[in-house]
Amino acid sequence: MKARVHVMLKDGVLDPQGEAVKHALGTLGFSGVAGVRQGKVIDLDLTATDAAAAEAEVRVMCEKLLANTVIEKFTVEIL
Amino acid sequence: MKARVHVMLKDGVLDPQGEAVKHALGTLGFSGVAGVRQGKVIDLDLTATDAAAAEAEVRVMCEKLLANTVIEKFTVEIL
Repeated sequence: MKARVHVMLKDGVLDPQGEAVKHALGTLGFSGVAGVRQGKVIDLDLTATDAAAAEAEVRVMCEKLLANTVIEKFTVEIL
Repeated sequence: MKARVHVMLKDGVLDPQGEAVKHALGTLGFSGVAGVRQGKVIDLDLTATDAAAAEAEVRVMCEKLLANTVIEKFTVEIL
């Protein structure tokens, strides 16, 4: 079973990576970019077969390791 | 209009970040993780109003800046 986790900075948190990408896109002539936020995507290949249990386990992984929940939010999708 | 870009290393390319995450999850007691691949997610806020044109422009952004197409693959979603 595969799971996809997105980890993004929370909305109020400054995202210097995103700002750098936005600036670089402007420099390259892409003027229609109003904002950029950059985050991480983590694809997990799980041996679990029960989707609900797998999602619960991945949420614990996020809380413990994959996301810094002080400044980051995460979403879990079971594929 | 919002677009979401995923940039992942191509399948044959070694992913040391993913391996590190997999190892760390194992150390924390998550034994059911067979593989981990880590990539980037980039959320773009675009002023364009035409979805097809926006997707085409974001693909050019990926080719020029957001992805290194020698070792990375990307997907574009218009949200």
